[in-house]
This record gives sequence, C-alpha cells and structure tokens, in this order.
Amino acid sequence: MSELTKNIVWDDVKHDPNAVKVLDHGFVVLKETMGSDSTIAESARVSYGAGTKTISDDRNLIRYLMRHHHTSPFEMAEARFLVKVPVFIWRQWIRHRTANVNELSGRYSELPEEYYVPDEWRAQSVTNKQGGEEPMFYESKNVEEAAFDEYRNRLNEGVSRELARTCLPVSHYTLAYWKCDIHNIMHFLKLRLHSHAQHEIQLYARTIYTLLKDRFPLTVEAFEDYVLNCESFSRMELHLLKEMLKQSKMTIFTEARAEDMGMSRREYVEFSNKISKIFNFNK
Amino acid sequence: MSELTKNIVWDDVKHDPNAVKVLDHGFVVLKETMGSDSTIAESARVSYGAGTKTISDDRNLIRYLMRHHHTSPFEMAEARFLVKVPVFIWRQWIRHRTANVNELSGRYSELPEEYYVPDEWRAQSVTNKQGGEEPMFYESKNVEEAAFDEYRNRLNEGVSRELARTCLPVSHYTLAYWKCDIHNIMHFLKLRLHSHAQHEIQLYARTIYTLLKDRFPLTVEAFEDYVLNCESFSRMELHLLKEMLKQSKMTIFTEARAEDMGMSRREYVEFSNKISKIFNFNK
Amino acid sequence: MSELTKNIVWDDVKHDPNAVKVLDHGFVVLKETMGSDSTIAESARVSYGAGTKTISDDRNLIRYLMRHHHTSPFEMAEARFLVKVPVFIWRQWIRHRTANVNELSGRYSELPEEYYVPDEWRAQSVTNKQGGEEPMFYESKNVEEAAFDEYRNRLNEGVSRELARTCLPVSHYTLAYWKCDIHNIMHFLKLRLHSHAQHEIQLYARTIYTLLKDRFPLTVEAFEDYVLNCESFSRMELHLLKEMLKQSKMTIFTEARAEDMGMSRREYVEFSNKISKIFNFNK
Amino acid sequence: MSELTKNIVWDDVKHDPNAVKVLDHGFVVLKETMGSDSTIAESARVSYGAGTKTISDDRNLIRYLMRHHHTSPFEMAEARFLVKVPVFIWRQWIRHRTANVNELSGRYSELPEEYYVPDEWRAQSVTNKQGGEEPMFYESKNVEEAAFDEYRNRLNEGVSRELARTCLPVSHYTLAYWKCDIHNIMHFLKLRLHSHAQHEIQLYARTIYTLLKDRFPLTVEAFEDYVLNCESFSRMELHLLKEMLKQSKMTIFTEARAEDMGMSRREYVEFSNKISKIFNFNK
Repeated sequence: MSELTKNIVWDDVKHDPNAVKVLDHGFVVLKETMGSDSTIAESARVSYGAGTKTISDDRNLIRYLMRHHHTSPFEMAEARFLVKVPVFIWRQWIRHRTANVNELSGRYSELPEEYYVPDEWRAQSVTNKQGGEEPMFYESKNVEEAAFDEYRNRLNEGVSRELARTCLPVSHYTLAYWKCDIHNIMHFLKLRLHSHAQHEIQLYARTIYTLLKDRFPLTVEAFEDYVLNCESFSRMELHLLKEMLKQSKMTIFTEARAEDMGMSRREYVEFSNKISKIFNFNK
Repeated sequence: MSELTKNIVWDDVKHDPNAVKVLDHGFVVLKETMGSDSTIAESARVSYGAGTKTISDDRNLIRYLMRHHHTSPFEMAEARFLVKVPVFIWRQWIRHRTANVNELSGRYSELPEEYYVPDEWRAQSVTNKQGGEEPMFYESKNVEEAAFDEYRNRLNEGVSRELARTCLPVSHYTLAYWKCDIHNIMHFLKLRLHSHAQHEIQLYARTIYTLLKDRFPLTVEAFEDYVLNCESFSRMELHLLKEMLKQSKMTIFTEARAEDMGMSRREYVEFSNKISKIFNFNK
Repeated sequence: MSELTKNIVWDDVKHDPNAVKVLDHGFVVLKETMGSDSTIAESARVSYGAGTKTISDDRNLIRYLMRHHHTSPFEMAEARFLVKVPVFIWRQWIRHRTANVNELSGRYSELPEEYYVPDEWRAQSVTNKQGGEEPMFYESKNVEEAAFDEYRNRLNEGVSRELARTCLPVSHYTLAYWKCDIHNIMHFLKLRLHSHAQHEIQLYARTIYTLLKDRFPLTVEAFEDYVLNCESFSRMELHLLKEMLKQSKMTIFTEARAEDMGMSRREYVEFSNKISKIFNFNK
Repeated sequence: MSELTKNIVWDDVKHDPNAVKVLDHGFVVLKETMGSDSTIAESARVSYGAGTKTISDDRNLIRYLMRHHHTSPFEMAEARFLVKVPVFIWRQWIRHRTANVNELSGRYSELPEEYYVPDEWRAQSVTNKQGGEEPMFYESKNVEEAAFDEYRNRLNEGVSRELARTCLPVSHYTLAYWKCDIHNIMHFLKLRLHSHAQHEIQLYARTIYTLLKDRFPLTVEAFEDYVLNCESFSRMELHLLKEMLKQSKMTIFTEARAEDMGMSRREYVEFSNKISKIFNFNK
C-alpha cells in the first residue's frame, strides 16, 4: 500500500493500550468524556431548584430523574469513542442520528484487507425473523480474498479509489470517531443490548456499556434498574395482571420488604400507586 | 394599531372555522397532514419485507410496531398546526426540539392586547412540587393592562418594538406554525398529556390528540394501548410483583381470556414470556 | 428465492411508472410532498407579519428568505421519496441526519442479485484526492457473482440471513424511503450536486433536484440564484477583490443594469452595500 | 422568599469569579469544554486519511475544513455554559435546536425580582423592520415592580407557582445550562453576532465568542476569516462583479500579493479559480 494513501489513524491506533478488542479485528477506544454523575445532578438542580433539596444526594436525584424520564440532564455529559467495526454493523450503528461522526473515507484512503469472518456461524431462527440463533457448522468459501485482489488490481491499474472499492464485501472494517451524549448512548445501549439486536452489535454495545459504567457509575446503575431491566405492560396486559393479582394478598407487602430490595420510601409509594391504579382499572 | 405593523396571520385566522378553541383566547388549527396509517404500514414493509406478510393487515402491523418500539415508520407521516398559545406555555412546548417552527416575532409585528387569565386559580400542591391542584378563590389584581398601556406608550413615543415589548407579561399570546412527524407528536403527547404537565398545556395536548386521532385512527389506538396506558415496572418492582404473583394461580390464564381483551395470539405469547421472565428473576 | 423472504416493496416498485431510473438498477420515486411554495411564504408571514406586506408576492418573499438565510419557512414543506441505491452511495446519503428513513433490512429479506457496475471506469484524479475524473479502460473481473453464489449457498445451508449477507459487495442495491423537509433537501443538494461529490451520488441528487423543481418552482429558482450558483469570498479574498475593483469604474453600474439581470431594487441596494463594504475594508 | 423554593444554583453562582457580566443582571460562565483544536484536526484525519498529510499542521487543516464546509470535525468538540438571560432573549436563543438545555423552572422555584431594563432606549428603525437603532430618550414607567408585587401576593395567598408567574414580564431573568458542539456554536455566533440580531443577544454572542476563542484559537481564527467576515455573491451579483472586473487588469495579481494577505498557495489557486469562473459566466 502506498504511503500516500494509507490511513494515518488506522495505523496509529493499532497498538493503543486502551483499545478494547471486539470481534476478530475490531475495537472500541474511549477517547474522552465530558462531565460526570455530578454534572448530571447539578444540571437537574438548575431546573428543579430547591425541590431537589429533598432529594439530597446525587445518587437519589439521578435515580429519580431516570425513573421519571427526565432525560435532559443526561444530555449534559458526553463521551467520544474511536471504533473499528465491520461496515454491515456500522450501517446499523449510524441509524442513531443524534450523534457526531467522522468516518474513514474509502475515497481518500486505501482500505486494508481486514474483514470480519464469524468464528461461529449461526442458523436462521424460525421464530425470530430477524435473527440467527443456534451455532451450526458451515464451511464458508472465502470470496473476500478475491474481492480484495480485484480491489488492489483496480488501484494498480489507476482506477479511482471511489470506484475501486465497490467490489469490497460489507464485512470489511471501517474506522470512525463516534461522539454522543449520555442520554443518547443509553438509548443506543437499550436497543443494541437487546437480545433481538444482531449478536455482533451486541458485543460492541456491551463494550461501550462497560466503559461507560466505569465513568458514570450512578447513572448506569440507575439505567440498569429503571430502563434496561424494566418491563412495560400494555393496557390489556395490565388487565390480565389485575386478574392475577386479585388472588394475591396485598397485605404481604410491607414497606420493609421494598426496603430490602433497595427501594426508597418514595419509590415504594410510587409502586403502591401503580398497583392501586391496576386495581382501579375498569374497561 | 398601525396597519403596517399588524400581524396578517393573526387577523386572518380569527374566524377560521377549523380553529379549535383552547383557553380564553388560544386555539389549535390542523392545517395539513402528510401520509396516513397506510403510509406508516407501507414504510415498515420496506424494512421488514416479507416478514410482515404474516402480519397481514395494517392494524396488526401498526400495533406490532408500536409494541416493539419500532419508531421509524411513525416518522414517515407529518402534521402541521397553527397554534395560538400564551408565551409561558409555548416555552414548555418549544422544548421539544424535533419539530419545525415559525413563530410570530414581536420585533416585526405589534402585539395585540391578548393575554391569558385563568378562569379558576389553582392552589400550590404540597406533595407535587411542580404543580397546582385544588381550585381556590383568588382575587387577582390586573397588572397586565398597565403593562400593555406602557407597551403602547413606548411604541407611540417611537421606541423600537424589540425593546417596547420587554414589559409584556409571559401570559401574552403568541402565534406559531408547528410541524412535527407523528412519532414525535406522540412523544409530545405522552409527556404533555401526563397529569404532572401544567394543566394549560394538557388542554392543548388534548386538542392535538383528538385532531390526530381523526386522521391516524389505527396509530393513535395503538398509542393508547401500548404507550399512553401502559405501565413500566423497574427491576425491583418486578421482584415485588413476582412475590405477589407467586400466590396467584397462573392457570386461570387461558388464551381465550386474553382474546376477550382484544389481544392477538402473538401478544398473548409475549405476555406469557414476560410473566415467565418475572418468575425466573433471581435478583 | 423463497416467497417468504422476498421483499414485497422491491418487487412491487419494479414497474412503477413514476420511478426515474438512475444508474444500472437504481431509481428515485417521489411518493408524496406536503406544502408548496405558498406554504413556505405563508409560514414566513406569521413570523415577519406586516413587514412582509411590502414584499407582496410569494416569489419575492421566497427570494428574500433564501437570500438572507431565513431557513425555517423552508422546513415547513416536506417530500418523501422511495430510492433504490447501491450501499456505498447510501452510506454517503445517510450522513445527512435530519431526515427520516426506513431501509430494507437484510436480516428480514433475502437480497436479490443486483449490484452496480460502472458503465465507464474513472481514473484516480491526482489533484482531487477524493475523486475520479477521466474515463479509462479497465477490464473488471467479476467478483460479485461469486459473492452472491456464496450468499445463496449460505442461505441454502441454513445460515441466518444476518450473517449470510456479510460477503456481499458494497455495490449491492438497497431500497429505502427517505423523507426530508425542503430546507434540508436543499442542503443535501448543495453538497451532493457539488462537483467534488462522487459522480454516482451526483446523479441521484440531479434526479431529486428535477423532481423537486417541478413541485416547488419558486423555491428551487431562488435556491439556484442564491445558493447553488453563488460564490463566497473569504476576508482575504475580499481584499484582493477590492484591489481589482479599485481599477474599475463603479459608475458603469446603473440600477437599470441590475434590473436587466432580474434583480429587484432591494437586491441592488444590497449589492451596492456589499461593494461599499469591500471598499471600506481596511484589513 | 422561602428557603424551600429558592433556586440553589441561582444563589450559588452569584459570586462565581468566572461569570462574565452581560446586561444589568445577566452573565455567561464557561463551565467546561471537551476537545481542542487538535481534537478537531485529529477527527478530520480519520476521514481524509493520508490526504491530510499534505496539509501537515493543525492550523492549515482547520482552515481547509472551514473553507470547504467540512463541518463534521467541528462537531467533535463541545462547550457547556451557564447563562443568565432575560426571557425575551432566551426565546431567541432556544430556537437553535441542536443544543442541550436545562433551564430553571418557575413551577419548582420562586423567581427572584430581577428583570432587564435597558440603560439606553433605542428608536424603531424605519429601514430595518426588525430592529431598533438610534439611542433616544424615553422615560419608562416601571410596570415590572407591580407585576412582581402581584406575583408575590399570589404566592402568599397560596396560588400555585405555575399560575402565579403568568403576570411576570418577559424581561425577567432565567438561568440555564446550555451545551453545544463547536460547529453549532459557530452557527449560533454567525446569526447572533449579525448586526440585524437584537442588540442584547449580540452582547451574549460576543461574550461566548470571546470565551470560545480562548479555548479554540485556531478554529475561531478560521471562522473569522472564512465565515464571519466572508461575503457571498448571488448568481446575478457575480455577473455584475464580472462587468466591474472586466475593466480591471488581472495582472496585478501575483501570488506574492496573496501571500502578503496570509493566504496559502492552495487558497490562491482557489481564488484564481473563482475569478476565472466569474469570467466564464455566460447567462
């Protein structure tokens, strides 16, 4: 590859000690963050004023914000990543529009022969139309090598980079800076950690999740409790729940039991209200 | 008021038969929509392809999309409104950033003496820090009139409109076109129909909701069942639910019961899975 | 291809009489627009009030808005397209974030063997690092066919669609609904009609431009005069211009001359002011 | 004012040494930035690869990006401000949608009696419909005090904060965190430093501009040269320029002259191309 068309960042990052490996050739590097759990709490305090004095500490305030979908304070912190990722995954990633992106361009740089090959093939799921599930044996024929050979041949013959690359497989790696506020990263994580997301993007999401938790521990803890591991019930489902619960003895619920689970007094009241609402459902 | 500085649209719209009155001087006019329930279903079909054949009709497909937070097809339809609203309410409205707005400017037009006076005063709630609740008697002193007098005096003396208006109360009415895709209108409705939203913006939201339902009946029906009237339970709440449900006899649930509630077979399976998940929870 | 995994829209659209062909297998269909030149003018009138009475007709008002970067009225109209486009072009397209998108998913549908092959190869430009320029002879080796063979083989063996597709070339076609307001479509056009944009996306932009002009003639005319064919000069360039113009006789400029060019009186004054500003530049 | 409804941040920030005063009671505090000129250059390098090697240093690269509207690298840096600003100005500010905001809420906090009174009144401009121009004498009647008296009376009588505040003037101060990427801050500055923007928001823009320049000197320098102090000429204006330039002797332009102005060789070529384009204009 000509020195002139090599991508500088691609080479520089190869030995970055902060790069967390994902897939066969991919990685995620957390380059920088702005703000912290405290920034988020401080931002909420300008809106809610002394009302937040009763929610005295940052942890309680952050949990309150997360529980009640007061999302704007979580936009006040940011994280910037450098990611290397196969194009077919990047195409899913980029659908999250509220983010800032600078991606390597195959019009400027020659693309190195790096492409993703699954170390385990997954069979098409019958029930889940979008996904693959069980591992299966498949002896793949390598067609990628021929594609890269043709690519290099085109370049050698003087074909423009922008046309030469058209034969490359969607499994080839690309490199991008991705910057996003914490609210929108959590939205990304909610969708991409989901079991229906493609396995490969789940692995990237998992990595970002771990890196984020390290910097924003209170926020990510609240995210786990109120978003990631929550469950929503539709109007009709709430009716079914009501019928199921009718047979249950509400009396078993003491506030103490809720406290054991780590719920605040305020949360317990909110829960009781939800249950009462279910019982008062009539339609 | 000088003919030269009157706002044309303000006067024109006064007798619009499509204007739905809100508050003492406000209104909402639905000017135009693009797309329909069918557009939304059609948009989903390009993504999900033959997978949506099994979800044969538009209603089922739309309900599936809403239930599973596949939001992008709902962005494929739009609605454009003309609204007249007090400034303190408009300031809440405008916080929804994914919308297009053209608002009357007090730098160009002279502002007519129209301001909101509640026909019933609400006392400060003690439990709900952001809201007012119970009606109360309060004999308000009119300070708005003096503000408008001073405003007009400034104009008469030649003060620029941009400075003259600074003394006007935040209750004065403004006028704006507001255009938004259906997904984001539903997000607006979810937040502004909420009982914790200020009463006045709830009234506007209610009006928009009714107008929208007329044009997008299937979408709004699904929105009611899966968003507006749904309830989310946190990780801890799901534990409490589990304990309550333990005492219940699951056997009462026949699919027939779910069908009575208008749930599809697919939804019933999803519900069963949620309940199983709750039972398999071990912190 | 199995009936179950065929994409419905892909087949339906094949014989759409409104599809404008682009490249070997691509097209653009204008599905729907909301609003018109009049909507844009009407939206401006709510903001600028009687101030726009002096700009009496829609054409003049639209030209004024375009000239002075009053962009929000142009957001009040929308257009929705169905496009079929090679993935490497779509990746450039999707970088415009202020748009709504529903794209075919290779996780749900089997991808037909349709990929872009240039009918003329372009050599790498030496001066323009991002582009190709002169046509050249190149005998391309077909590596795409082998990739699609491998793809189908994977599917036949039961590999999940989401993994099977990874070997397909970035030249394979995808299908998407793309909806965007007129302001942002013009921004897209400005960048993608530019001679430095890749030739293939220029062709799509050209098609959208023609379709848009048919529906929004006044807006597109103003876009041509004030955006597409305008030229910006930097601080330093204005100094150079000043020196060049110093030798020129300003007197040749009569308002009549400007009128011949189709400029309004107001525009002529604006131009004179720009020239005066240049002459009064002192670093 | 009750301790319970005081806004914490409002009081805390009063003596912040970093607060830059604007107007009678307002200020801007730069709380935090993420990234630097180097971050911006580094982000461009991932896209343009070795192509940027010829643009060796950060300054040249940043100037190139600014000149050619390659805006995405400028989105890779952020700044977060705390601002105190009158409501009528904030209403203009908030129209910039690509930003993150947390504003004080009058539903939670009691609003202190602080409102903007111009130290000099401006007369309505006749030529510029939106603005005020010449200073004038005007003896303003204070109607704001009565509004605040009524406000406090309402609160004392138990009226909810959300209704009590409706009589307050739009000149009353609000407090907000405002976070924005550098590209969008520059867009804000371009519009709000403009002589047609309201004088008061120009003062805020000026303050932000100064704070930004301190942290991103190369970026702001390029912004000045290629955006703030540039001038655009329409299709018709370019024709007029052509006629003016026809009489000029192009020969006066040596590259050396351009170099004196601080232009790079590359820029000089670009300028020559623009001039040639003007001369080849025919329509």
